Amino acid sequence: MSKEITARSEDYSQWYNDLVLKGGLADYSAVKGCMVIKPYGFGLWEGMRDVLDKKFKDTGHQNAYFPLFIPKSFLSKEAAHIEGFAKECAVVTHYRLKNDPNGGGVIVDPEAKLEEELIVRPTSETIIWNTYKSWIQSHRDLPLLINQWANVVRWEMRTRLFLRTAEFLWQEGHTAHATAQEAVAETRQMLDVYADFAENWMAMPVIKGVKTPNERFAGAVDTYCIEALMQDGKALQAGTSHFLGQNFAKAFDVQFTNKENKLEYVWATSWGVSTRLIGALVMAHSDDDGLILPPRIAPLQVVIVPIYKNEEQKARIDEKVNALVAELKQAGIRVKYDDADHARPGWKFAEYELKGVPVRIALGARDLENNVAEVARRDNKTKESLSLDGLTGAIQLLLEDIQQNMYNKAKTYRDEHITPVDTWEEFVATLDGKAGFVAAHWDGTPETEEAIKEKTKATIRCIPLNNPQSPGQCILTGKPSKERVLFARAY
Amino acid sequence: MSKEITARSEDYSQWYNDLVLKGGLADYSAVKGCMVIKPYGFGLWEGMRDVLDKKFKDTGHQNAYFPLFIPKSFLSKEAAHIEGFAKECAVVTHYRLKNDPNGGGVIVDPEAKLEEELIVRPTSETIIWNTYKSWIQSHRDLPLLINQWANVVRWEMRTRLFLRTAEFLWQEGHTAHATAQEAVAETRQMLDVYADFAENWMAMPVIKGVKTPNERFAGAVDTYCIEALMQDGKALQAGTSHFLGQNFAKAFDVQFTNKENKLEYVWATSWGVSTRLIGALVMAHSDDDGLILPPRIAPLQVVIVPIYKNEEQKARIDEKVNALVAELKQAGIRVKYDDADHARPGWKFAEYELKGVPVRIALGARDLENNVAEVARRDNKTKESLSLDGLTGAIQLLLEDIQQNMYNKAKTYRDEHITPVDTWEEFVATLDGKAGFVAAHWDGTPETEEAIKEKTKATIRCIPLNNPQSPGQCILTGKPSKERVLFARAY
Ligand SMILES: [Zn+2]
Ligand SMILES: [Zn+2]
Repeated sequence: MSKEITARSEDYSQWYNDLVLKGGLADYSAVKGCMVIKPYGFGLWEGMRDVLDKKFKDTGHQNAYFPLFIPKSFLSKEAAHIEGFAKECAVVTHYRLKNDPNGGGVIVDPEAKLEEELIVRPTSETIIWNTYKSWIQSHRDLPLLINQWANVVRWEMRTRLFLRTAEFLWQEGHTAHATAQEAVAETRQMLDVYADFAENWMAMPVIKGVKTPNERFAGAVDTYCIEALMQDGKALQAGTSHFLGQNFAKAFDVQFTNKENKLEYVWATSWGVSTRLIGALVMAHSDDDGLILPPRIAPLQVVIVPIYKNEEQKARIDEKVNALVAELKQAGIRVKYDDADHARPGWKFAEYELKGVPVRIALGARDLENNVAEVARRDNKTKESLSLDGLTGAIQLLLEDIQQNMYNKAKTYRDEHITPVDTWEEFVATLDGKAGFVAAHWDGTPETEEAIKEKTKATIRCIPLNNPQSPGQCILTGKPSKERVLFARAY
Repeated sequence: MSKEITARSEDYSQWYNDLVLKGGLADYSAVKGCMVIKPYGFGLWEGMRDVLDKKFKDTGHQNAYFPLFIPKSFLSKEAAHIEGFAKECAVVTHYRLKNDPNGGGVIVDPEAKLEEELIVRPTSETIIWNTYKSWIQSHRDLPLLINQWANVVRWEMRTRLFLRTAEFLWQEGHTAHATAQEAVAETRQMLDVYADFAENWMAMPVIKGVKTPNERFAGAVDTYCIEALMQDGKALQAGTSHFLGQNFAKAFDVQFTNKENKLEYVWATSWGVSTRLIGALVMAHSDDDGLILPPRIAPLQVVIVPIYKNEEQKARIDEKVNALVAELKQAGIRVKYDDADHARPGWKFAEYELKGVPVRIALGARDLENNVAEVARRDNKTKESLSLDGLTGAIQLLLEDIQQNMYNKAKTYRDEHITPVDTWEEFVATLDGKAGFVAAHWDGTPETEEAIKEKTKATIRCIPLNNPQSPGQCILTGKPSKERVLFARAY
C-alpha cells in the first residue's frame, strides 16, 4: 500500500525501524544519537506518562524538578556510580560563544570556561541527594517521596530509535526513608507498579526479578527489574527499581535524627522507566502491516472511514457518524472521523493499520440502509458487520477484548519461550535456535556470568522473585547451584 | 508565626525570595543559576501546564519532542538569532570522563572531544526548522502546528528564582504556514490564548501589544507580548508570540510547492511561556503573610483544619469532615483535611496562609453543635461562619468570588498605574515615584529608545494593540510622534 514495511521475518531490525519511522513515532535528528519524537509517538508517550503519573501520585509521590546539570565532582562522590557513568557523559565546559576575530565564524569563547565542568544528567541521584541534605533533618521529614519527569543524556555510540538514544525522556523516582525495610518495601512497590502498567496497559507480560551484581545499577545495593520478551525472542528490560541502601546518603552526608534522637544515614531508592517502553511496545505486538497498539494506551482507539459515491450519500453518512462520534466520546473513547477527501478508503485503511489503531469502522451507503457498519479489529484482522443500534456498547466490549487478546497472545508466546536446559549444548542450541529466556543453573559467580556472556552474548536477565529452589549444576562450570536463573540475549 | 517573611514595604526583593523559598515553591541548587522546583511549586506548574496544554490542543496543536542539543553551526544560520543568543550558550565540548592518569581524580577525557560543539538549546527554532525541511514538501503538509514542553538553558550571570534562571521549563510552539496572513493570524491567536490564561486563570490583567525592534526576539519579524504589572510597579513580560516571517525557512531552506505548483519559502511562528509565570503570579498577588493563589490554578483550593480537645471530639469532627471532603471532591474541588496531630491549629493556619491556599475551613466541637464551620478566605482575610448544610455549594461560589476579586484588585492597581505624561520631568518623576506603566510619546527611533533606557532603566514594554492614534512630541527629543507607547522598568 502507501508505505512499504520490510517483513519481520526478512529483517527484524529493519522491520522495527520501518515501523517507528513510517508509523510516525520518531525520526532521526541532525544530532548524532538524538531522536525527534513525532506527534503520534509523543501522543503515545503522553498517554503512558499520564497513567504512570497517576499511579505514582496514588502511591503518595509528588513531582519536582532538579537541575539538568551536575557538577563533575558530585558524580564522582559515589565510587560505583561514577565508574558506571563516566564513559558516557556529555560535558559542558564553556558558557559563551563569540565571533572568531580571525573571521572563522562563531566559535566557543575560550575566556568563558567553567571553573568546574558540568555533566548533563545521565540520572539524578547525585544532584538530588545533595539537595536532600538540606531537606532532611529529622525522622519527621521522612519518607520523602519524589518523582521527576525529565530528559537525560547518556552518550551512546550505537543507537537505535527509542531503544538506545543519547538523549531520552524518562521519569526517575527518588525516595528517602528512615529504615532499610521501608526502602526495600518502596523498591518492591514501584516494581509492582511498573509490572502492573506493563501487563495491564501495554498488554506486555513481564517477569519480575532481581539483577545479579554484574547487571546492577551503578551505586545500588539491589536492582529489581521487569523483563519482557520481544517477538524475535530477545529480552528487553522494561523498568528498574533500585534499593540504594545508604550509599548516596553517605556520599552526600544526609543524616537524620531518629525517634531516639540519634543521627542515622538515610535509606534510599530510585526507580525509572523511559521512552524505551515505546520501543518495547512496538516490538512486542506489531506485525508486517504496521503497529498494533493496545487500546488502553492507543492515542486513537477508533477511526471511522466513510465510503460514498456522491455528496448526497456523504451527507447521510456524516449525519449518522457525527452522532456516533459524540456517543463514543461521551463513553470516553478516543475516536476520529476521517472524512478527508484527498485519499481513498483503501489508502486510509492501510494508513490506520500502519498506525496500529485498534478498531476501524467503515460506513457506506448500503451499510446505512441496512443499519450496520463494518467493524475491523487491528489485532487479529477480523471484520464483522455490527448493528448501528448499540454500537457504542459493542465497541467498548471490543476494545476490552482486544486488550485482553493482545496480552494473551504475548503471554502465550512468552511462556512458550522460557526453556529449561541442563547442559551447555542445550543452552547454546536454545539461544541460537528457539531463543527466548533460557532457565539454567549458574554457579553464582560474576566470573562465570561474564564468561557465558562472552561466549554467547547472553546475560542473566534476572533471578525471578519467588524463584523455586531446586539444586543443580552450573551449565558452564558444573559447580553446584541452588536455583535456575533466566538467561537471554537482550536489547 | 512559623516562618518569618520580610515585609514587602521593607525589602521587596527579599519579600519575594522569602515567599518562594519559605512557601515551598523552589530552592537554590548547587549549580550556579539553576533552581530546584519543589513539589508545591511543581504542582503549581503542572496545573498551569495542563490548562495551557488543553488550550493548545483545542486550537489544533500537537506536542512533539526535539533534541536538547543544537549543533553550533545551526545556531549560526540565522544572523539575528545567533547575535541574540551567542552570549548565553552552555556548550558541550566532550562526551566522556576518565580517571586522571596522574591521580587527579575524574577528568574530562581530552580524546573524547566533539568534532562540532553542541549547544544546550536556548530555544529550538533552528533544530526544529532543520527537521521541518524533511517534513514539509507540499501545501498539503501545511499548516504544521507543533508545540514542545521542554527545559532550555540561557546562561545568566544575575539570576532570580523563577524570574531569571540559567535553566528553566517552558513550552515553545513552532508552526509552519503557507501564507504570511495565516502565520500572523496564528501569532495573534496564541497571544490571545496567553492573555486569556493570564487573566482568567492567573487573575493577572495583561496588556497585549507589539514590541519595538529593540526588544524583538532574535530572528523575528514581529514580537507580540503580554505585559503584566507587579505590586512594586515594575512590568513583567509574561508571554511572547513571534511572527518569524520566512527567516528560518530561508536559513534552513524549507520550501513547499504551493497550489500553483510553484516553490515558496514557508512562513513561521513561535510562541512561549515559561516557569517565569510562577514568579509573576507570586509578585502579582501575594502579601506579607505569604502567597495568595488564584483558586483556578491553586494546587490546593480548600484546607480543612479540625479543632478539638479530646479524641471523642476529634472522632465526631472526622466523621463530618470525611463526608464533606468526599462531597467537595465530587464537586471537583481540590481539598485536603489536615488532621496531623503534631501541629497546633494556629501553626497550620499560618502555614496555609503562607502557601496561599484560597479557602481555609476550621471546624471545632462547638461549631459542630451549631452545625456551622468557620470559613476564611486568603485573599482579603475575612472570615464568616457558614452553615454545614449546603457548604459545598457555598464554597464553589466563594472560590469563584475569590478568583474574580483577585483579578479586580490587580486590575484596579494596574489601571491606576498607567500614567500619561507629556514632559521628560513628569516621565522621570513618575518612574521614580509612582512607578507602573508610563504612557508617553516617543519619536520612533531605536536610538531614542536606547537613550531613554540608559538614562532611566525604563524600556518600551509594548505598543498596545489597537493603540489610539494621537499626535504629540517625543518626551526626550521633542520630535513628532503619532501615538503614546508604554514605558516601564521591568523584570
Ligand atoms: Zn530481570
Ligand atoms: Zn508588550
